[in-house]
Amino acid sequence: MQKIITLSTDRRNGLYDITSEVVSLIKTSKVQTGIASVYARGSTCAIMIQENWDQSVQNDVVTLLNKMIPSGIWEHDHQDNNGDAHLKAGLVGPSETIPIIENNPGLSTWQNIFFCEFDGPRQRREIVVSIIADN
Amino acid sequence: MQKIITLSTDRRNGLYDITSEVVSLIKTSKVQTGIASVYARGSTCAIMIQENWDQSVQNDVVTLLNKMIPSGIWEHDHQDNNGDAHLKAGLVGPSETIPIIENNPGLSTWQNIFFCEFDGPRQRREIVVSIIADN
Amino acid sequence: MQKIITLSTDRRNGLYDITSEVVSLIKTSKVQTGIASVYARGSTCAIMIQENWDQSVQNDVVTLLNKMIPSGIWEHDHQDNNGDAHLKAGLVGPSETIPIIENNPGLSTWQNIFFCEFDGPRQRREIVVSIIADN
Repeated sequence: MQKIITLSTDRRNGLYDITSEVVSLIKTSKVQTGIASVYARGSTCAIMIQENWDQSVQNDVVTLLNKMIPSGIWEHDHQDNNGDAHLKAGLVGPSETIPIIENNPGLSTWQNIFFCEFDGPRQRREIVVSIIADN
Repeated sequence: MQKIITLSTDRRNGLYDITSEVVSLIKTSKVQTGIASVYARGSTCAIMIQENWDQSVQNDVVTLLNKMIPSGIWEHDHQDNNGDAHLKAGLVGPSETIPIIENNPGLSTWQNIFFCEFDGPRQRREIVVSIIADN
Repeated sequence: MQKIITLSTDRRNGLYDITSEVVSLIKTSKVQTGIASVYARGSTCAIMIQENWDQSVQNDVVTLLNKMIPSGIWEHDHQDNNGDAHLKAGLVGPSETIPIIENNPGLSTWQNIFFCEFDGPRQRREIVVSIIADN
């Protein structure tokens, strides 16, 4: 089974929790054991597995990436002025593969699935979830 | 086939080679061609493919991440005092997908599979290995 | 279906676009829906999804990684003098999993698949592409 999750983003940099949407697709698929491949379609966004107890770690991710990859100093900025967004996206990466265990994602208690926006706000972002059964 | 590998860790930051456990699961599965998805369950740990000729690269990984992501300066530290561990885990990422070629992992000569601990020591860490046949 | 793509590299650090080779393998497989797992065999190279409008982002990736991970200061340099190459490879990672949608890779308009060389030039580098159908 494969489905596209869509969302809109409201900031230039921000993490958006998409765990419940992925759980819901796994439930619908009825796959008991296998993998869920989560893929962000866009070269200025990414997928990160991260804690979701409160907003603090999400803020820290944005702070860290802004410090590591400042804006305005890249060759690509002469084109689009978003060189930093591409570099953040490439480093974090668009794909994560999560095990499916007994028709649930095999996340630990504190692991959630986040879409990372690095060049928002955007009206429509797409995440492809592909569910593959272990056979 | 899916199996959970467990291990205990003895340092705050350290890499632990789990290649032989993954090889053994691939052998047991009898899958000739496909993929092995390796997933670290925990938001303060990760999976990295890295050289294992000696301890030097593993030490360098810890040194680099401590330099890039110092401890004690994050918003999340007010909560758990492990903001750096979450950031390291998110950046390295919990999942790697390795090809299976002729019932062996398709690693190169110097590639080994490491569990990365960023908030140890811990008595029990879990890694889920999902083996999917190409059909 | 599984195939090994080979390429030679002409610089110490550089990104090489392998999208058309991956598209061609997906077409040959006739898989309509599923995933393509792309894996770089080597502990001094990696796979990155990145923009390919022109050379600028590729140059920026090399600039960023050289700044984050300078050469010549690592414990592993006493052995092979390529500690930086291993660290870059470990951080970017050798695997990306891309959805297959209607017998095409589910990349967005600006996403291309790049092999990242961090210790070239090399006569022969190998990338394993494993195509798994959703069934």
